[in-house]
This record gives sequence, C-alpha cells and structure tokens, in this order.
Amino acid sequence: MKPRLSLLILCILLPLFSAAAQDTLKTAFKYKDARELTLLGKPATVQDSGYHRINEPQRKDVPKAVAGLATNSAGIMVQFQTNSKAIKLKWALAKFNTLWNMTPAAINGLDLYGWNGKNWQYVATARPTALQNEDLVVSNLDGQLRHYRVHLPLYAAAEQVQVGVEESATLEKAYQDFIPRKKVVIYGSSITQGASASRPGMAYPAILSRQLNLETFNLGFSGSGKMELPLADILGQMEADVYVLDCVPNPSPEQIKERAVPFIKRLRELRPNTPILMVESIFRENAHWDQEKKVTVTRQNQEFRKAFDQLKKEKFANLYYLPTKDLIGHDHEATLDGSHLTDVGFTRLADKVGKQLKKLLR
Amino acid sequence: MKPRLSLLILCILLPLFSAAAQDTLKTAFKYKDARELTLLGKPATVQDSGYHRINEPQRKDVPKAVAGLATNSAGIMVQFQTNSKAIKLKWALAKFNTLWNMTPAAINGLDLYGWNGKNWQYVATARPTALQNEDLVVSNLDGQLRHYRVHLPLYAAAEQVQVGVEESATLEKAYQDFIPRKKVVIYGSSITQGASASRPGMAYPAILSRQLNLETFNLGFSGSGKMELPLADILGQMEADVYVLDCVPNPSPEQIKERAVPFIKRLRELRPNTPILMVESIFRENAHWDQEKKVTVTRQNQEFRKAFDQLKKEKFANLYYLPTKDLIGHDHEATLDGSHLTDVGFTRLADKVGKQLKKLLR
Repeated sequence: MKPRLSLLILCILLPLFSAAAQDTLKTAFKYKDARELTLLGKPATVQDSGYHRINEPQRKDVPKAVAGLATNSAGIMVQFQTNSKAIKLKWALAKFNTLWNMTPAAINGLDLYGWNGKNWQYVATARPTALQNEDLVVSNLDGQLRHYRVHLPLYAAAEQVQVGVEESATLEKAYQDFIPRKKVVIYGSSITQGASASRPGMAYPAILSRQLNLETFNLGFSGSGKMELPLADILGQMEADVYVLDCVPNPSPEQIKERAVPFIKRLRELRPNTPILMVESIFRENAHWDQEKKVTVTRQNQEFRKAFDQLKKEKFANLYYLPTKDLIGHDHEATLDGSHLTDVGFTRLADKVGKQLKKLLR
Repeated sequence: MKPRLSLLILCILLPLFSAAAQDTLKTAFKYKDARELTLLGKPATVQDSGYHRINEPQRKDVPKAVAGLATNSAGIMVQFQTNSKAIKLKWALAKFNTLWNMTPAAINGLDLYGWNGKNWQYVATARPTALQNEDLVVSNLDGQLRHYRVHLPLYAAAEQVQVGVEESATLEKAYQDFIPRKKVVIYGSSITQGASASRPGMAYPAILSRQLNLETFNLGFSGSGKMELPLADILGQMEADVYVLDCVPNPSPEQIKERAVPFIKRLRELRPNTPILMVESIFRENAHWDQEKKVTVTRQNQEFRKAFDQLKKEKFANLYYLPTKDLIGHDHEATLDGSHLTDVGFTRLADKVGKQLKKLLR
C-alpha cells in the first residue's frame, strides 16, 4: 500500500503552478543532519532521536491519541548559519497526511525564515510530495553569512531532516545570541498544534517564537488536549518561564469542571513559581449560528473561569486569565471551518497571547 | 482509475478532527438545483449549463490552459432565502483536485455565509471528500427567514450544486434587494483565481463582493493570465462597471511590453467608457531573497507602468493604476509560498483594491 500511495500522492500533487525554485543548479551540495545543527522547541525531556514532543517511555501514560500526535513535529525548529547562495531541505516523513481543512504544506512541509538584521523574515516554503522529500527552497541568495530558521511539519512525524548548502559554503550551528533565553510551554488542542495555519511557521506558537524571541514548545494535540493528569506531569517536567493552558476547546464542560483544578494544582506542585496563563476557547464561528454549539462553548468557558476563580480564592499566585472576548477579532473571518484558525486568526491570537506573555516575562 | 482515486481520497481525507455538523438529524430534506436559485458571478455571456467562466464556443479561441481553467467555478455564488433550521449542500465535481499549497476546502469545497442584518457573516464550510459530496453544513439554526450565499469551489469544476433544507421549510430565490447592482470583472492570475485562500469565500474577488456589495466576476486563470487578445474580447463582451486588470504575475516582462497596450486598447474599443484599474504584481516574497527573481518582478511591474504611462500620454480617459507598494503589507507574512496569498494577504489586497473601486463606483 505505502509505495503506491506515495506514488499516487506525487501524481496528484503535480503542480498546476510552481512557486519553489527550479532545481537547475549545477552546484554540488553538502548536507548536515538537523540534529547536528541547533534544535529549538524540542523538549529537553525527549530523548528519542525523532522530532517528538513527548518522550517514548512517557507516551504509555497518556491517551492513545496524544501518544500518536506527540510524534508529530509541530513547533520544532532548526537553526543554522550559512553563507550559501542556495539552500536545499531534505526530509522524510513517517506518513504523508492529508486533511480537508489544511494545506499539504502545513501538514507535511517546512518553512524557511532568514534573519534580516532586525527580524525573522519569511524566505520560502519547502514543498512536500511524498514520504521522502527534497526541495531547493531558495537560490540566487547574496552569499552573505546569515542565520536561518526552519519550522518543521505540523501534522506529520518528521523522521529525518537535513539541511543542504553549496559545497563551498559554511554550515554551522546558530551563534548563542540567536538562541532565545525565555521558554514558554503551550498546552492545547488542534488550534495550538497549528490547524489550519497555511504553513508551519504560521501556527501561533511559531509566530510568538519569532515575534517575542522565545523558545516555544508546542504541546497542542488535535482533538485531544483534555487535561488528563499525566499531561500535567509532562508539562511540569519541562523547564518553562510561563505555561500557557489553551485546552478548553476539546474537553466537555463536565470534563473541564472535573479536571481543570486538579490539573493546575498538579502542575503547580511541580513548578511552584512559574506563571500560568489560562486561555479561554475561541468562540467558535458556527456557534454564532448553531444554538446547541453556542451553549456548549459558553459552558466550556464558564467552567474554565470557575476553575480560575476557585484557585484565586485559594490564594494561588502567578495565575492569569485571558477571556475569549477579543481573541480572534469580530469580523467572523478568522477561521477555516468555524473552529480552526487561518493565518488571519493565528495572527490575532498571537497578538493577544503575546501581550500577556510580554507582561509575564518582564 | 477514477473510482479508485476517489475512494483513496476519501480514505486519506478521513478527519483527524471534525468541524462540520454531525449528520444525525431525523428530519427529511428537500433540494433545489442552484440554477433554480439566484446565481451571481457567472458571466451572462456563458450559456453552458455548468458553472463555467467562459462560454464553450469561445474557449477554442483562448490558450488551452485558460480553456481548462475556465471550467473551474471560481467566484460563482448561489444566493437563496430559507427559514430552515438546517442546511445541506450537495455538489458534484468533474475532478477532485489536490495542490500542495491549497486546502481541499478551497479547491473543491463550498463556503456558506448568512445575512445577519448588516453584513454577510461566515456560517460554515462544506467539506469535500470525493467527486460526489453531501454535507450537513449547519443545524440548530433559529428558524428565522434569512438570506444565504454559497461560494463555489475555486480550483475545480462544479458540475452539479444543490441546496437542501428541511422539508417543511421555505427555499426561494433571493429578493431583488439582495442582488448587487454594480458589476466588477477581475482578470488575472492564480492570485485572482484564489490560490491560496483557505476557503472559497476568502479569494479577494469574493471578499470584495461581500464588503462592497458587488457582483464580482472572477476571471483569474492560474499561471495563465497573460493578456492574449481573445481575452480582451471576452472581457469586453461582459457587462461591467469597472474592469480590474491584475495580470502582471504570469507574463514575462517582454510579453507585458508587447501585449499590455494592445490588450487595453482592444478592451477600450469594446467598452469606450468603463473605468479600467491596472494593478501591479505583488512583490513576491522570495524576490526579497532571490536576486534573479527580484529583477524579474521589478521589470514586470516597470513594463506595466510604461504601458499605463503611454496610454495616459495618448489621452486615454478612465484608466487608473495601483502600484505594488502597500498591496500586501510589509511584514512578509501574507503569502503561503512567496507568491500566493493566504487569507492575510487577500484581506490586505481586498482592502487596497476595494479603496480604488469605491472611488470608481461612486
């Protein structure tokens, strides 16, 4: 099945239009494995060689769906410096995934950014076509020594990632100055994982990492961010300057009522002083129309708020709350399907969460 | 090949997460073909029963790629009114297309908007899975009589489209007040056609249709908007209050030099008084890095500008020009792949083009 599937995918992805650099270069390339360069956003608790988000032995303690999604490389970044005039990316996926509400680029592809002297600036997206991929993402660069960052696939497990540069060029780890000092762990749903960003760099933890110079850790699990206690243990074992809990969309109102307080208490036991930011669910767009969904989303947020109020009553310090009100704007155009944010929504959400983080990280 | 392909696509599109309404309703539904409701954005010159953008006999006069893409339903809209508490959409596609830089939702799916008393407000997206599709897009509505609009697939040929409502509900054409009086024809590239909007309603001609209450006609042809003379004839045969020419990205600088002036002169012969808005190409994001691409995009826009200057010198009236400068903002985050706009880019482009249109339509 597998070979036929990848061949077929290759066929159906044949471009109607081309955006990537045409690979007509005569230059020879040399490669380094991403593990030999600078990795960011991969928890230090993860010892697996893969680009996983929860360490293999811990995956038996979490729901099966979480264990599977933990192998997706969402939020993991590779940094390096080179003076090459062209950059290639090679990567292998465990499975080529397809979803009706995401682009193959976001699910299985890579995003390249370059440091322009002031900011991380978008350079190009590497086009995925099959399980094994190779793409000349940019050529005709000016040949200056520069730092680059690659965001890994959001909804697939990257097994191998290699960076290729011209044989005569340098290719080294990032300088210390290019490694963010502050760490933020974000736990949540598909929205945190990055559905429906247009490409990996537009998931909101990725936007925050660039805009606020943070090492963000994406612990978003599609449909599965439901505050089971083992997840509090996993979060608490990770170093963080702030924890963001964006885990209201998946659990039922009853589950939130039952789980939110014990989850946060457990996290607090492990990390007595780290600020925790609780984020309400975005008000789903279809809930403006579907009267039943309206009730459910409202109740989910109410139960999360009650948990916050109870913990504040119990004198919990360093606990902060971000209500749904302005999270994704008011023009109703921030989602792809009523639930999952497009780049418009992620830009707005990153702005709101970012404002809180700036205060907490002062 | 076809049945196997659609079965396979069905399998690989099995949702990791669900956003559409679950179809557990007991209610019986009745259907009307979209052709019996109110169609907008389909040129009056098109007599084919399909949702095509150029009439069949005329397709032999245009390049083969344009003829093929003209069968894609980009920009065509269905309006209706109903008091149903649930809405289903059924649609058949000639081919289920897949692209690495677009969502299946945008390529093959439908978008539902509802009139909220002030604006067209997003309701839901219909999920495409195969050649034949049926989706309960919204349920538990309040049962008020209301107008709705459906945007058809951007990169596939919709062959049949049916709207379904509860058997006891009304389902009628739109009232005259809900039909825009002004018509704008937009001719261009993949950007005009709608790559890489997240869903059909976020292509910029669709955004303009809602925000400015226009009947927009999407004549965007992916990779193929190159100003051949027969296209000027086709545009000139369509009624329009303004023509927008967003056709710089595809032709080479040499082609623009050769074609732009004769193309606009031909259009002017057919429509002596209709305002024409010439829009420069967005400055492609990868052209900030790739020194060769930088030269090409710059030259494309320069040649278009020269054409404008020449025509103004020749005393052409009602000719307007929108330079690339602020079209997609300056944060470099408006594209999916350096060339094609995400919803962020389309929102910005619609704003800039919209400001010009408002002046021209006064």
